[in-house]
Amino acid sequence: MKPASGFRDFISDRARLRLELNARISAIYTRYGFEPVESPALENLDVLLGSGGEENEKLIFKTLKRGEKLQASLQAGKNEETDLADLGLRFDMTVPLCRLTAAHFSDLQMPWKVFHMGSVWRAERPQKGRYREFTQCDVDIIGSSSLFAETEILCAVADCFTEFGVNGLELRLSHRQFLVDLAASCGLSDKLPDFCILIDKMDKLPAEKMQAEFEQLCSGNLPEILQRLLKKQIQIKDVEKISPEAFRDLSVLMDNLKSHQISIGRVVFDSSLARGMGYYTGCIFEFSHPEFGFSLAGGGRYDQLVGRFMKNPVPAVGCSIGFERLFLYLEDQVSKKSSWRNEVFAVVFSDNDRKDISSLAKELRSLGIAVDVYADSAKPAKQFKYAAAKFYRWALIVGEQERANQKIKLKNLELGEELEFSSNQVAQIVQKISSFAA
Amino acid sequence: MKPASGFRDFISDRARLRLELNARISAIYTRYGFEPVESPALENLDVLLGSGGEENEKLIFKTLKRGEKLQASLQAGKNEETDLADLGLRFDMTVPLCRLTAAHFSDLQMPWKVFHMGSVWRAERPQKGRYREFTQCDVDIIGSSSLFAETEILCAVADCFTEFGVNGLELRLSHRQFLVDLAASCGLSDKLPDFCILIDKMDKLPAEKMQAEFEQLCSGNLPEILQRLLKKQIQIKDVEKISPEAFRDLSVLMDNLKSHQISIGRVVFDSSLARGMGYYTGCIFEFSHPEFGFSLAGGGRYDQLVGRFMKNPVPAVGCSIGFERLFLYLEDQVSKKSSWRNEVFAVVFSDNDRKDISSLAKELRSLGIAVDVYADSAKPAKQFKYAAAKFYRWALIVGEQERANQKIKLKNLELGEELEFSSNQVAQIVQKISSFAA
Repeated sequence: MKPASGFRDFISDRARLRLELNARISAIYTRYGFEPVESPALENLDVLLGSGGEENEKLIFKTLKRGEKLQASLQAGKNEETDLADLGLRFDMTVPLCRLTAAHFSDLQMPWKVFHMGSVWRAERPQKGRYREFTQCDVDIIGSSSLFAETEILCAVADCFTEFGVNGLELRLSHRQFLVDLAASCGLSDKLPDFCILIDKMDKLPAEKMQAEFEQLCSGNLPEILQRLLKKQIQIKDVEKISPEAFRDLSVLMDNLKSHQISIGRVVFDSSLARGMGYYTGCIFEFSHPEFGFSLAGGGRYDQLVGRFMKNPVPAVGCSIGFERLFLYLEDQVSKKSSWRNEVFAVVFSDNDRKDISSLAKELRSLGIAVDVYADSAKPAKQFKYAAAKFYRWALIVGEQERANQKIKLKNLELGEELEFSSNQVAQIVQKISSFAA
Repeated sequence: MKPASGFRDFISDRARLRLELNARISAIYTRYGFEPVESPALENLDVLLGSGGEENEKLIFKTLKRGEKLQASLQAGKNEETDLADLGLRFDMTVPLCRLTAAHFSDLQMPWKVFHMGSVWRAERPQKGRYREFTQCDVDIIGSSSLFAETEILCAVADCFTEFGVNGLELRLSHRQFLVDLAASCGLSDKLPDFCILIDKMDKLPAEKMQAEFEQLCSGNLPEILQRLLKKQIQIKDVEKISPEAFRDLSVLMDNLKSHQISIGRVVFDSSLARGMGYYTGCIFEFSHPEFGFSLAGGGRYDQLVGRFMKNPVPAVGCSIGFERLFLYLEDQVSKKSSWRNEVFAVVFSDNDRKDISSLAKELRSLGIAVDVYADSAKPAKQFKYAAAKFYRWALIVGEQERANQKIKLKNLELGEELEFSSNQVAQIVQKISSFAA
């Protein structure tokens, strides 16, 4: 029986890769002095709604009220989703982080460098490559207005990609104030959300279609600046006139990234970058790859969102790694290499030997070697078949003959080579096995 | 703004400990040859309902249908929870694992040794120590009827507790067939679920209350065997007469555990152990501590549950570590020691120095040292205050004087000691810092 539509199971190498990916991203963030945080999957609906999540707020999985509360709503004829539900599954990690920051503000040292990893849920219409549950790896700095915060975040995220061997990435930058000022200069201030949504579509829709949509938004002819935008002719130098504030921030940030030697070659201003979320207030950014049709990470500054949950506004900036996309990319790389191997499989020749084999396995495990002992009663041939199917590199063999001679045989299942050790040479066995580990 | 009622946030040391706990439990299971698996948080409701989850099935968080489907249910006057909802959050890891096993059966090597960690959700009435979202760390062997599977599982779980320094644990065993046969011998076969629920209460309710409840269940006088049960007089030797099958299994398992040198001293038969879940079919077990009022891990054999999702039954056994309880215990231990320290804090004396400091930080990070650079523009005094509040052990100082002399100062914030290195002595700095790491 398959998982529910839009959801996924992960087994074997795929589950292992996800676990490793998680651990390595944590390690990189920790190396930068970011600390972990864990928030609940479910939040009160009023935390999630009206948070600037825009389209994503429409996709919230809401949990049904229970017992008397549900009956009370139904009997009162209250049939709206918000009448019948009280909690919602988070659709991103940023809104819950802001709620959490407000809740624990007095216990936190500002600026707070934090990473926040976990599942998010969106009730998207199931389609290829769109999932209803996916992992996000967010890294945020809360309590700093300095562009050094953006710099630190972007360098840490860039390091993740470098560590995983994802090269040729491009970092595209823009600024919310640029979009606000651009909209104002076209008389579209009151249509800012629609304006941003349209801009986000520029890389997806054909030019004529975009032109028509913009004309509709402007109720007529396009201002010259929008014609240039559509032709992708707006460069960073043009931003200075349209939005001095955005220009100043972007120039400083680009200088910082250069002087900090960010491990990504190409950093560019991109006038077609808008980022869906309404909660952004300053610099916005995306890491993308010319060969992929999607971004691998993205984020921006959201100086107003923490303030929704407490008296005073608190500046903040963050970036989210698209874990699922990184996973798909690496899965492809790994399967091409297929270098992965399980370590040691201990064959049980007879159930009477099991005690001794288990004790040997225990000793090896305590020395850091992963050892699998066959968990069922079965003939050796069946056990070897299992070991081969699971890509074990080594088999540990103590058959009748080895027992009699107080020997242990270590067989390399990949190369066929057999080595014999005395029963007390466990250290040598560990050495041999370790010498093969990647 | 606090999390929703019954939910929790984790920050700083607590979040760090949870992350570490997760990683170390994974490592132990991996050492035993178990492989990870990841299943979705949400399952179709028909997977979760009628799965033998008993009381927990009543506590499922159900997600509201959306759009037209919801309207269709409401307009048809269908007001049951199962009419209004389509998906549910998992209440344990076992039911989803069985569904997943059936879905991927042809890709799996049996016996399948697997671990499955993640959040589960139960809509409990919020109260102290009861949470609506909590982590479970399950370890399972699927496809083996052998009691070696139970042995392997219990040894791996016992190793987790040993590794975390939780000593003095007791492993209590019983068997579903013992409960079935005991109920039959008292003429209570048709009341088996209630009988099991009552037995589970034996350690919580006073003796008179228990007696009254049992009398009610038996509609009159208690059979002699139940009187002995209430007095906790039923020993393993008595099981032989009541349930030869349970006796055989328990005797073999106890022998196995002894010969495998399970790292827990006390293994006992406990007639008052029933385990709530209706899906158990064979041995059942719990790890508990005389000083704690709750069990730290528990599980059993469930030979029928995978078969609910595919044609043929597949035997299985598993154990779940109560992550939250282990976490609470360790949190208490850690806070008593308070030995934890962040590594290195790099002070930024002026924003003009930032480039050099960042480059030094980058080099140290590439050598495996975690370095935090202050992310805001601030005076050194403020930065030192932050470093002290966050328990950094080392401060990296390149002030005006150090700069002029091409020196780097490393200050131990705990002991006050200051060391000076030449700018090119990065390896020596790493050595010094590493020599302090636990």
